[in-house]
Amino acid sequence: MSDLDRVLARIDADLDSAIQRLFTTLRLKSISTDPAYAAETRACAEWHAADLSAIGFDAAVRETPGHPMVVGHHGSGSPSVLFYGHYDVQPVDPLELWYDDPFEPALVTRPDGSREIRGRGAADDKGQLMTFVEACRAWMAEMGELPLAVSVLLEGEEESEGVNLPPFLDAHADELRADVALICDTNMWDSDTPAVTVSLRGLCGEELTIYGADRDLHSGFYGSAAANPNHVLARILADLRDAEGRITLPGFYDGVPELPEHLRLMWERLPFDPASFLGEVGLGEPAGEKGRSVLEMTWSRPTCEVNGMGGGYQGPGFKTVIPASASAKVSFRLVFDQDPHRIRAAFREHVKARLPRDCRVEFSEHGSGRAVAFDTSAPPFQKARAALTDEWGREAAFIGGGGSIPVATEIKEKLGMDVVMAGFGLNDDRIHSPNEKYDLRSFHKGIRSWARILHALGE
Amino acid sequence: MSDLDRVLARIDADLDSAIQRLFTTLRLKSISTDPAYAAETRACAEWHAADLSAIGFDAAVRETPGHPMVVGHHGSGSPSVLFYGHYDVQPVDPLELWYDDPFEPALVTRPDGSREIRGRGAADDKGQLMTFVEACRAWMAEMGELPLAVSVLLEGEEESEGVNLPPFLDAHADELRADVALICDTNMWDSDTPAVTVSLRGLCGEELTIYGADRDLHSGFYGSAAANPNHVLARILADLRDAEGRITLPGFYDGVPELPEHLRLMWERLPFDPASFLGEVGLGEPAGEKGRSVLEMTWSRPTCEVNGMGGGYQGPGFKTVIPASASAKVSFRLVFDQDPHRIRAAFREHVKARLPRDCRVEFSEHGSGRAVAFDTSAPPFQKARAALTDEWGREAAFIGGGGSIPVATEIKEKLGMDVVMAGFGLNDDRIHSPNEKYDLRSFHKGIRSWARILHALGE
Repeated sequence: MSDLDRVLARIDADLDSAIQRLFTTLRLKSISTDPAYAAETRACAEWHAADLSAIGFDAAVRETPGHPMVVGHHGSGSPSVLFYGHYDVQPVDPLELWYDDPFEPALVTRPDGSREIRGRGAADDKGQLMTFVEACRAWMAEMGELPLAVSVLLEGEEESEGVNLPPFLDAHADELRADVALICDTNMWDSDTPAVTVSLRGLCGEELTIYGADRDLHSGFYGSAAANPNHVLARILADLRDAEGRITLPGFYDGVPELPEHLRLMWERLPFDPASFLGEVGLGEPAGEKGRSVLEMTWSRPTCEVNGMGGGYQGPGFKTVIPASASAKVSFRLVFDQDPHRIRAAFREHVKARLPRDCRVEFSEHGSGRAVAFDTSAPPFQKARAALTDEWGREAAFIGGGGSIPVATEIKEKLGMDVVMAGFGLNDDRIHSPNEKYDLRSFHKGIRSWARILHALGE
Repeated sequence: MSDLDRVLARIDADLDSAIQRLFTTLRLKSISTDPAYAAETRACAEWHAADLSAIGFDAAVRETPGHPMVVGHHGSGSPSVLFYGHYDVQPVDPLELWYDDPFEPALVTRPDGSREIRGRGAADDKGQLMTFVEACRAWMAEMGELPLAVSVLLEGEEESEGVNLPPFLDAHADELRADVALICDTNMWDSDTPAVTVSLRGLCGEELTIYGADRDLHSGFYGSAAANPNHVLARILADLRDAEGRITLPGFYDGVPELPEHLRLMWERLPFDPASFLGEVGLGEPAGEKGRSVLEMTWSRPTCEVNGMGGGYQGPGFKTVIPASASAKVSFRLVFDQDPHRIRAAFREHVKARLPRDCRVEFSEHGSGRAVAFDTSAPPFQKARAALTDEWGREAAFIGGGGSIPVATEIKEKLGMDVVMAGFGLNDDRIHSPNEKYDLRSFHKGIRSWARILHALGE
């Protein structure tokens, strides 16, 4: 029996206790965006530091001006990897749509006999990061050592602003730099086909509040005469797209080339059915830019989404009020060479140009990150792909990613490292939504996948 | 000393205890639109029934399928009046903008030495309805009788749907019918000039919810591809007005004549400064239909206001979600012969025409009422005007009203009565807003005004 086979057998034997460890961190309400959960977010960091130490890492909670990082090291020299994951989670509202307490994780058997781990963070990202941690634990338990030097960096602000990560990378560049970085925060191609994500979109997040009168007004007395921030906001948001679904901000598409022919051909060959992709969530018709495929729209085209908006009376019944303010949260996903700072400036100009003299606006910034893409001919990508192919029995795909993982850009820019993004999430995991889940199969075979990747990278 | 002078002197002597009685009802949280306050709304009705009984009315709480009515009678035959007021109040959110507990009323002295009664309902409508009740109390206390037969009807659903009032009027038409109806739920022209409101706009209230995917989606994975209900709603709301500020619904202006020349001239002579009207609430520029005066817009033109809208994540921080739904509350103020049912239908067509195939919409109706106008040459209007002129020492104005008091239409249509709307509210009373207040002067001279009007109508 090879070393790797022994480690894989250990993983299989140890699965139940791995699930229990995952449940322990899932019970910690590490909602980083809400200050009410600051203490529990810290408690989650402390649990992960202790868990890494128990495996044999030299691990500790490391302070930042915001939520802390967790850093652990095992071994030194080359070959070496830096693994990144995040222990914070999204808010859980609307709570009434959850089948059960989001922070009381459960292993649920589905009608077809397969099982899923349910709870906030089950997939994003506690379940995913623990696949890597459990692979390390199995190597240590079975072999007494890891096949290469491993550093682990766990962030607590991925779901909020993440403003403390870039200076932390700057300040600890020498400590954290390795031959290659690994991230487990992405999806498989489908439930049978593993994938390495080799490009990610950037992000520009912006919140705006429109202010009108200095108080809420009675719409019977002031209607028409007084500027209504709800109307101003609706106009601003509606005008962000034209009838063809294109974003109207001047210069928005600067730095966005047409998709290269070889990628277009590769993506067309992927077994992807837009109708069933949308059908899984109750939709049927692509909504964005006319004449673009769904894969193109979600991987290589920029987007603009209103993630939240609100103004006036939203409770039960009716209240004939003209609100004093209305606000919205808008995010742009960026591709290729789009500059988040120029796009933020263009958005603010768009808003100001539609602001009546009687209204004023306040903006606040929520994240900026450029898009990123890696050269897949480098050895770590080829080794990871081969290891994933071995585990899943189906050739792993190099895919684009619609989401934004700013840390991938930061690691590339600040530490000069390639980043191999291998993850075991599925499109139906409901991350950021009620009833988030992670397939037990993703968790189990994810651990086995990382055991193989560590072995391959260590050779 | 005449009877009337004795009653007026009694009102002056009794003011402190009148304030304490008003405070008692202001402490009762009769928020009719929120089911959580149903019990307290009933308690408020019971208090008013007991208070009317104490004066000498044959008064009782009367059931409806919703919140109860209070009905009281004193005397019979002609001349007779039916007084209408409402004991329910608006919700109090946003609570953090109140200086103090909205349900702990206070008498506050302003820098200029004048005083105001502060609290939810202080003006709308508990303070106003109590001016009439206190006038009756003073007549009874001083003279042992009222100068004419008086019936009182207090509603508990004016600030919510009011759906139970029309059938209640139908069922008790004979009991409630009088020579003329009186309503105290309107404003003075300004703090020195009393007014009788002789026309009111109608109302059509509508709530809509746009549904997209069957769950909240991650905007990184589904952005552009999935229909975003926030975008659909913003487009629907923005498209309600054109660049000239006109409402775009087909047929919306059917039945809306240009203002008759004599009214236009009368309104132009009123001492009204649009800049200071708007300036009082921090605004400076009329927002509605271009080329229309502020008085015209708020008295004789129809309006469309988005009173509330919301969708997606509105909490602190940021959440990159595409929400499963978004909703809005929209109200139309109607004038002259506009038909609320046709306008509701046109609005629903407007929405459906902008609905992508992947979205669906649900509507719910919140109130329908036609506009109403009275012939001011009838004796009750002339008598009320003269009584008000006597009390305030300045000629009372016949004015239009921007708000909607559906009961005025209902009383006219179902009971065949004219309605004299005399009220003592001021434009800065912040009704429907935080820190609602009623000037002590409005309360005191309001009571005296009703004492005079009762006397005039009884002659």
